[in-house]
Amino acid sequence: MADIASRVYNHKWKIDPIVRSLIDTDFYKLLMCQSVLRNRPDTQVTFSLINRNSAVRLAELIDEGELREQLDHIRSLSLSRGESTWLRGNTFYGKRQMFRPDFMEWFEKLRLPPYHLETRDGQFELTFEGSWPEVMLWEIPALSVLMELRSRKVLADMGRFELQVLYARAMTRLWEKIEALRQVDGLRIADFGTRRRHSFLWQDWAVQAMQEGLGAKFTGTSNCLIALRRELEAIGTNAHELPMVYAALADTDAALHRAPYEVLEDWQDEHDGNLRIILPDTFGTAGFLEHAPDWLAGWTGIRIDSGDPAKGAETAIAWWRARGEDPRDKLIIFSDGLDTRKIIELHAQFAGRVRVSFGWGTLLTNDFRGLVPDDGLAPFSLVCKAVAAEGRPTVKLSDNPNKAMGPEAEVARYKRVFGVGTQDPIEVVV
Amino acid sequence: MADIASRVYNHKWKIDPIVRSLIDTDFYKLLMCQSVLRNRPDTQVTFSLINRNSAVRLAELIDEGELREQLDHIRSLSLSRGESTWLRGNTFYGKRQMFRPDFMEWFEKLRLPPYHLETRDGQFELTFEGSWPEVMLWEIPALSVLMELRSRKVLADMGRFELQVLYARAMTRLWEKIEALRQVDGLRIADFGTRRRHSFLWQDWAVQAMQEGLGAKFTGTSNCLIALRRELEAIGTNAHELPMVYAALADTDAALHRAPYEVLEDWQDEHDGNLRIILPDTFGTAGFLEHAPDWLAGWTGIRIDSGDPAKGAETAIAWWRARGEDPRDKLIIFSDGLDTRKIIELHAQFAGRVRVSFGWGTLLTNDFRGLVPDDGLAPFSLVCKAVAAEGRPTVKLSDNPNKAMGPEAEVARYKRVFGVGTQDPIEVVV
Repeated sequence: MADIASRVYNHKWKIDPIVRSLIDTDFYKLLMCQSVLRNRPDTQVTFSLINRNSAVRLAELIDEGELREQLDHIRSLSLSRGESTWLRGNTFYGKRQMFRPDFMEWFEKLRLPPYHLETRDGQFELTFEGSWPEVMLWEIPALSVLMELRSRKVLADMGRFELQVLYARAMTRLWEKIEALRQVDGLRIADFGTRRRHSFLWQDWAVQAMQEGLGAKFTGTSNCLIALRRELEAIGTNAHELPMVYAALADTDAALHRAPYEVLEDWQDEHDGNLRIILPDTFGTAGFLEHAPDWLAGWTGIRIDSGDPAKGAETAIAWWRARGEDPRDKLIIFSDGLDTRKIIELHAQFAGRVRVSFGWGTLLTNDFRGLVPDDGLAPFSLVCKAVAAEGRPTVKLSDNPNKAMGPEAEVARYKRVFGVGTQDPIEVVV
Repeated sequence: MADIASRVYNHKWKIDPIVRSLIDTDFYKLLMCQSVLRNRPDTQVTFSLINRNSAVRLAELIDEGELREQLDHIRSLSLSRGESTWLRGNTFYGKRQMFRPDFMEWFEKLRLPPYHLETRDGQFELTFEGSWPEVMLWEIPALSVLMELRSRKVLADMGRFELQVLYARAMTRLWEKIEALRQVDGLRIADFGTRRRHSFLWQDWAVQAMQEGLGAKFTGTSNCLIALRRELEAIGTNAHELPMVYAALADTDAALHRAPYEVLEDWQDEHDGNLRIILPDTFGTAGFLEHAPDWLAGWTGIRIDSGDPAKGAETAIAWWRARGEDPRDKLIIFSDGLDTRKIIELHAQFAGRVRVSFGWGTLLTNDFRGLVPDDGLAPFSLVCKAVAAEGRPTVKLSDNPNKAMGPEAEVARYKRVFGVGTQDPIEVVV
């Protein structure tokens, strides 16, 4: 029996919104937002979309008007009562009231600030300007809207059964990955795939498949909305934007060199345990660890997000040893460009030597490679980054020169200040 | 929004019925039933379930009580008004009023007769006794109920996502078959897979996938209910039970030898065009064609349902030539143990030399081979056959000794009467 009321209600939507909740975003965004709101609430920043794969001509695939409708819809969103209750009442990383009342009151009133959108040379120029805690919350919804609009466009001309078989193939592929991962004793893995997911529903499916297929090996999802709905742990700590903006605000080379440690001082004031995770690669891992204050060696772990991951892990282990820490007590979180084989390989290499954990992103939530002609659904490297703070450009070096960003002269200055020598380039797939 | 009324309504069902309509059966059953009702309405027959694969211990998989509930439900069915309207009003093989008013009046009043069910040595002894036109309609629903109960049993312990991935795999596999068949110029293929389908919903999916994927190359389905719902051609002509029962009723060897031709004389009185299809293998193709009256060579085509299909087709072509017919005007329907590769091969071999058509059965609607542990969903050779008529055993020889049935002495007598020599055994997969 058709539910007539539902059908009529569905007809009333002018668009099919991709992002329907302000917490359809990564958990670490909220943690960082709370930190920024306390420490740097008035900093003016610019975030900008960067399509690292210029061969994907987004503006030729996606209608600018449809993109505007989706972004306008996001601007109409506010935190719902149930979402607020969950953020206030849930236990995150074993801690109650992770989010301070002042943050929650601010968040409950928040609407996302305006965006600036232009089309140039087949690409979108999409920027967000304003106060840091507001603007930073655009990153994830902007990316997931663009990824899903692109998926929709590619799927638009397919037949009903062709579509069903497309998803059947993607499901089969993901399930085979899960079956392979199920064999790994002691595996701990979370979903980090919100930003470049194929679609919201597909991410939600992938998370549930991981839940059923991996059981306790699946530790949770970075996506707050899915964590709420599926009663999972919300996973995440901090990201490059913190040291990037802190660094851009530094007035001298000495202050610049101090900036990444300042970020973690501020973080340490608020968080302990599994939230004390160092992301050391923003301006080069080796130099960062070499000059790190001793208190940082006491932190719980390190997240490795660029460069050769095995090399990064060895560097971290050597550093802990040099600082008199037992690496077996430490946590290493791999989160860069992971897929099944790499996960199994890294686990085999490091399990027992350190505590190992994985944040699996794009190839969990968007592995549609090879499933349509011209590989039109293959994921690609789309990011949305803080590019300026108080009018000054930001810089990211990372451990892979292909992931570096910022004006050339500034990149050179940062390399000098942070003592970064030659780096091995690694192809950025996703 | 949940449709509350639907949920409550669904709760009221005591079982989840597998067969929900008297026309969830093969079209040729209804054509034959009409013929039998006119020519041999009072013949008493026994149909019996035969599991050719004794390794599948059906009674250990399926609860006898559940089987009874499904069979009892089938006995509660009668032709609905819409089904009757479709049978009376639809065009079948380009002909209106294919079903005579007297047959329709009889069918509208029909309830299926009682069944006899016992469990012995891990197998079900399931028989149906009574007047031929009634009993014969048990064959297809009995088989599809047993196949689907077995599927349900194997699926019962699987998780939700495991199930979804199972169907994703089966869909992907079927779609790949369809993609391969799409390449075959001039292909004509129909669904003949009702009796040994994985489930009703799966057959319905397979039919729709063929519709979308093959377009005009897909000529229809043998399943009347699906043909009605999906607005497809209902496909089918006649089967072995007609010559088997006619033969069993013969009092002398001479009458026995005449019996298969008598069947077709009766058939010719009622049908023309594409319904004049000879099924020559019941007691051996070679002898049947050799002794066939000339008027049979004028029929439209031959269905090849056992033995080496290429050899059978060559025999048919040579026979038409010998009788002065042009094989290029004739239709050959392949319907035995087909899968993609065989279909493509046979089409390549015979297209242009004759009109070629395919009735694709079990490996269209039940190819779940290798998808669960111990291959618990692999199709197997389950049939339900007329085993006796007026107390006399029936015999089938076919062109494959592995498909022969009947008491040994009777098989020997039939072989003598029909002049069947040595035959090449071919493994019966499905």
